Amino acid sequence: MSEYSEHDRSGGSKVMVEKKFFTFGEPPNQLLLESGARLGPITVAYETLGSLNDSGTNAILVTHALSGDSHVAGCYEEGDHKPGWWDTMVGPCKAIDTDRYFVICSNILGGCKGTTGPSSINPETARPYGLTFPVVTIGDMVKVQKALLDHLQIRSLLSVIGGSVGGMQVLEWAISYPGMVKSAIALATTTRHSALAIAFNEIGRQAIMSDPNFNKGDYYQGPGPVLGLALARMVGHVTYLSDDAMRSKFGRRLQDRETLAFDFEANFQVESYLRYQGSKFTQRFDANSFLYLTKAADYYDVKRQHGNDSEVEAFAKVKARMLVISFTSDWLYPTYQSRNMVKAMKKNGLDVSFCEIEAQCGHDAFLLPNKRQHSLISTFIERLYEEGNSNAL
Amino acid sequence: MSEYSEHDRSGGSKVMVEKKFFTFGEPPNQLLLESGARLGPITVAYETLGSLNDSGTNAILVTHALSGDSHVAGCYEEGDHKPGWWDTMVGPCKAIDTDRYFVICSNILGGCKGTTGPSSINPETARPYGLTFPVVTIGDMVKVQKALLDHLQIRSLLSVIGGSVGGMQVLEWAISYPGMVKSAIALATTTRHSALAIAFNEIGRQAIMSDPNFNKGDYYQGPGPVLGLALARMVGHVTYLSDDAMRSKFGRRLQDRETLAFDFEANFQVESYLRYQGSKFTQRFDANSFLYLTKAADYYDVKRQHGNDSEVEAFAKVKARMLVISFTSDWLYPTYQSRNMVKAMKKNGLDVSFCEIEAQCGHDAFLLPNKRQHSLISTFIERLYEEGNSNAL
Repeated sequence: MSEYSEHDRSGGSKVMVEKKFFTFGEPPNQLLLESGARLGPITVAYETLGSLNDSGTNAILVTHALSGDSHVAGCYEEGDHKPGWWDTMVGPCKAIDTDRYFVICSNILGGCKGTTGPSSINPETARPYGLTFPVVTIGDMVKVQKALLDHLQIRSLLSVIGGSVGGMQVLEWAISYPGMVKSAIALATTTRHSALAIAFNEIGRQAIMSDPNFNKGDYYQGPGPVLGLALARMVGHVTYLSDDAMRSKFGRRLQDRETLAFDFEANFQVESYLRYQGSKFTQRFDANSFLYLTKAADYYDVKRQHGNDSEVEAFAKVKARMLVISFTSDWLYPTYQSRNMVKAMKKNGLDVSFCEIEAQCGHDAFLLPNKRQHSLISTFIERLYEEGNSNAL
Repeated sequence: MSEYSEHDRSGGSKVMVEKKFFTFGEPPNQLLLESGARLGPITVAYETLGSLNDSGTNAILVTHALSGDSHVAGCYEEGDHKPGWWDTMVGPCKAIDTDRYFVICSNILGGCKGTTGPSSINPETARPYGLTFPVVTIGDMVKVQKALLDHLQIRSLLSVIGGSVGGMQVLEWAISYPGMVKSAIALATTTRHSALAIAFNEIGRQAIMSDPNFNKGDYYQGPGPVLGLALARMVGHVTYLSDDAMRSKFGRRLQDRETLAFDFEANFQVESYLRYQGSKFTQRFDANSFLYLTKAADYYDVKRQHGNDSEVEAFAKVKARMLVISFTSDWLYPTYQSRNMVKAMKKNGLDVSFCEIEAQCGHDAFLLPNKRQHSLISTFIERLYEEGNSNAL
């Protein structure tokens, strides 16, 4: 099967991609969610790069983080100057080389970029779900991705790779579909949110739900809780950066002035930056999706869900070769959390590589160009791919 | 002069204190602020414990942090079970021993606990100042404290002591009144906010100013921006704690339930705690004061204000003996910031003691009982007091 089409490559080095849709779970075959609720039909927005080889051994699933989407790399059309969110990592001759691998990325369940979520129309009421959308989990997101891969006739994954909330999906894949996942690469992630991480998400949710335009989530006719969502994003942005990163990016520099203004405008550059990031986010993201996706991240807990309260037991069924990467300045999911998960994996005799990358830019480091990360990932996948090929000879 | 009255001690170990007021700066003698604006009259709410000795050598000024007030220790009346905010530190036979020292603590300028601030009535309009209140600085707060001490005929301070924003006032005292300050104890503080600290304050301010009840600060007739202020406090609370502290205090424990609720109520204890703290704060604090006091903290910068952009130069005039204390888990004002200020002090040949205290509880550690802190402070002050007494013989 080949999804490699004229849309995939343009002249020069620009890769063209197309957003596609797949729908499943029409009643009475709705998806059974972890909460016990049933949801369907479910539409999944996805994109692919490269082509699946005949033996079906070169598929790589990329899972995205909170505010990401299916548009992992490449451009939608000529003259489009903003490529996908991980274009530095995914593409021809890049760390995840689309000349060699078939890459799939889909928008997560509960999102707002084409996959069914709270802003989707509930066919039963012909109105957006809003807060009637069921609370979904990382496990539910992965089930939806599995349905997509079944549809694409992908029976084996050379690798699943993702960072942050995407990394939780990576762990979930390795645990839930051990026969299908050859390797799993979890970046800047955790097996369970700390109280600190839950606290920041809860502040974001409270900001949204306190906004008078929130209207119990039923705001799709009106202006929507834009101020609350902007605040939530501001909080998020601070947690994605680090003290160091903020010091070198902004320090105490003033915005467009030489002296203190003695007012409540954005005097410092960091204030101006946060206001801008908050406001920009409201143009591209749905506040209800923010609630659902942060809740899914907070609920995720491999111990509780898969290990009878033991992290070691949670990884007992995993067969994938694992690569875990953390970043020195990530204080949202600090390295000790990655070390703990690596220990639990090793106690199961798993083949785990772990690396803490020295990076100044905080939690977001995995999204930024980083030679060490690129080389670790490309080498890890390449070795596995070549082993698979030589085994097949 | 003695302020030691029947109100100061009750039967048993309970110390009784009284909130007092002092007003100065009546037109045309208003206080000239750092911004160039003039403000007056200014009322200062203050409390004292112990009594000033005849030689006037035992006065200690305690400066409070963002949400503190003049009520540093003791109780207002019999049956009052909630003593002042630093009652563990200040009182008879405590680290700051009120049987020996005369302790003064006043509410800071811009606050809402009796000292003139944005919720005070502007005599020119007979309405609350709101945002017509001038932006004040740490320097302005210290000038107001100086006026109070002049009024109390205190000409020398054995020590000035405070943490966090109170610590900034301590530094400002040592720099601005070198002839008057014998020693200065700066706890969990910084000479200038990092971009990270400014960012958190800005999120709090945006939460307040985005609240539709804010009404450009003119909300004293209405319900006020309580949701925004609650959010601001939630953000603050997270920054006052640490990852460790939150893990041991809450971990991932659920609130009043055994299993996940799959809804947007406060499922985790940490969520419930933050909502409670946020809501409680709105009953005791003015949102406009939150804006002004955080802005003063963000503006504070000893380099810029006192040192021609050199921290060493900023401390050049200081004569006080210094004690600087930081806490291992304080990520709002991390230890490296205290080390930098200590280096700058030492380059001026100052007599500086520095200690980083091992504490799990984050920035708030200085407010909590801690044997190491108590012993460092009591020894430091005692030695100085006894030296002063023996010199006087």
